[in-house]
Amino acid sequence: MVTVVTATRPDDAERVLGALRRHLDERRRVVSGVDDRVDALAGRLSDFVLNGGKRIRPRFGLAGWSAASPADATVPDEILTACAALELIQACALIHDDIVDASDTRRGRPTVHRSIEAAHRDLGWSGDPARYGVSQAILVGDLALAWADEMFVTSGVDPAALGRALEPWYAMKTEVLSGQMLDILAESSGATDEETPARVNRFKTAAYTVERPLHIGAALAGAAPDTVTALREFGVAVGQAFQLRDDMLGVFGDPEVTGKPSGDDLREGKRTLLLARGTALATAGEADFLLSVLGTDLAPAELERARRILVDCGAVASVEAEIDTFTVRALDAIGSDAVSEHGRVTLRALAEAATRRRS
Amino acid sequence: MVTVVTATRPDDAERVLGALRRHLDERRRVVSGVDDRVDALAGRLSDFVLNGGKRIRPRFGLAGWSAASPADATVPDEILTACAALELIQACALIHDDIVDASDTRRGRPTVHRSIEAAHRDLGWSGDPARYGVSQAILVGDLALAWADEMFVTSGVDPAALGRALEPWYAMKTEVLSGQMLDILAESSGATDEETPARVNRFKTAAYTVERPLHIGAALAGAAPDTVTALREFGVAVGQAFQLRDDMLGVFGDPEVTGKPSGDDLREGKRTLLLARGTALATAGEADFLLSVLGTDLAPAELERARRILVDCGAVASVEAEIDTFTVRALDAIGSDAVSEHGRVTLRALAEAATRRRS
Repeated sequence: MVTVVTATRPDDAERVLGALRRHLDERRRVVSGVDDRVDALAGRLSDFVLNGGKRIRPRFGLAGWSAASPADATVPDEILTACAALELIQACALIHDDIVDASDTRRGRPTVHRSIEAAHRDLGWSGDPARYGVSQAILVGDLALAWADEMFVTSGVDPAALGRALEPWYAMKTEVLSGQMLDILAESSGATDEETPARVNRFKTAAYTVERPLHIGAALAGAAPDTVTALREFGVAVGQAFQLRDDMLGVFGDPEVTGKPSGDDLREGKRTLLLARGTALATAGEADFLLSVLGTDLAPAELERARRILVDCGAVASVEAEIDTFTVRALDAIGSDAVSEHGRVTLRALAEAATRRRS
Repeated sequence: MVTVVTATRPDDAERVLGALRRHLDERRRVVSGVDDRVDALAGRLSDFVLNGGKRIRPRFGLAGWSAASPADATVPDEILTACAALELIQACALIHDDIVDASDTRRGRPTVHRSIEAAHRDLGWSGDPARYGVSQAILVGDLALAWADEMFVTSGVDPAALGRALEPWYAMKTEVLSGQMLDILAESSGATDEETPARVNRFKTAAYTVERPLHIGAALAGAAPDTVTALREFGVAVGQAFQLRDDMLGVFGDPEVTGKPSGDDLREGKRTLLLARGTALATAGEADFLLSVLGTDLAPAELERARRILVDCGAVASVEAEIDTFTVRALDAIGSDAVSEHGRVTLRALAEAATRRRS
């Protein structure tokens, strides 16, 4: 996502990485005080956080701060640290999601539970290696969630700013967990309505990935209420467009670019809005086919047919139109004087990158 | 644990329950704003927290506050709320532990993952009910961990007091997670040394259950450094005695009183200090027997033989002696002027209850 990088100051990405490394190293000193073997497990969290990830949420956090600050303001270290803490929430979310989805790989490497499982097997320990991997990875994820709060609250931002930012910070955590629970529930209950995936998109993605990070950044900067409102409206719209783009990539994405298997969402049985629209618009026979291959290891010909159905029935065009609608709505939201000119430039670039991306 | 109740003001238990109920109800309003079906899952967390538990950690938190406050001081609501938040950390720990241990029951009722699994089965949803139960329970535990921080930080205690209490609060979370990871690691790696279970006791139990709650309470009260030191020393010693008593109950406890199956620790394959001492003191043949039945569903005769070995080899007497040593050390720690007379009375009663209990 090179385009996103250009929307932030080039050295901010390095500074986010540095803040994460410092915080993880400090916390690991507490862990190694307990036991070096446990510190080796905590090291897997460090590796996971420091060696990958697009830092989307810290970027939106910083964009929210910048939009509500003077054009030439350099982000202070404590604000940068508070925004970087968002990446640790994401670490917990991904590590626990990978357990829930029984995923073997993430970012082209074994998932945390799988890599711990492999270590158990290599050492010839007793018990089931897979169970061991899942058990320890649940706790590694908990550690990430605990450390996220610690990093945010002890970031050094002044008490007034922190007081303002805590409300969106805590709301975000409840929203993303609720959205993820709804996602799992939708998959198991076989929900085919559009309202359920729309809510998942709204809370698991839009609130968590864009709206709340912008809100947190703006709150840290002491933004005026109408600026906060504009940024949040922008965030909800961009976040929903971002998720719809994700839905498209989950079926049509190039594995070489996404790093995920071809047609991954169909294989995982995800109840996306694209799928709901497809089953609604396609013929009964085509809809039955889509639902019958959902959650299975699709053969190339099946994937090809599913893709063709989604294109031919108009679901793809309809989702693309919706992405455009959300993008227009996002740009409208930041069109007023409530958002600074330099903020608008940054946010436009972020909206572009989030909705036009290929990975 | 009636004796513990007598060591706190009788209405504090009701107040802790009320604070937890208020916080959970407020957070659930955010969840029901996402989806009522998800709120039903969050309701399982409320049921779990509100319908059981000994409130040991809030009690020690309040004892720490009281010991460092005037004898006639009534606990203010905000201090009570901050201490009650400890119970949400415990909810996360238990919900995730029950997944790790594949436990079916807790407090005489189905564990959270099992109850969600049963609901999935009753509704005839697709996919594996057990997988679904575990997936949602991981997230319910995450919700408890997220809400614990929110409850603690937004409790309303003044910023200076909160600033003092955050250090032990965050350290406690890292310690308990590290201790739990070491416990799982010890079980799988087949550690038979005494140092490993001693570290698990030190961090998973002593720090988390007694030392840090006292530390947090004392920090909230603005205790002098030597008072904090005395309370922490007391807490480490009582906490270790508490765990050793737990080890004894895990093998010899009466299921009618503990609410757990007879010989539960042996069935679960726990690497306790009692077991390590038993395998060290018993004959080679007896030690082999103990290790061979560990982690299996012991027949009554096997459990009886394991118990007899642990008694006859002197392991039980040695652990009982150690409980006494820790108890004496705990009482010594609070013997100086650093701890108020009324604080000492409360703490003595808590030490007594923690080490002499039958459940």
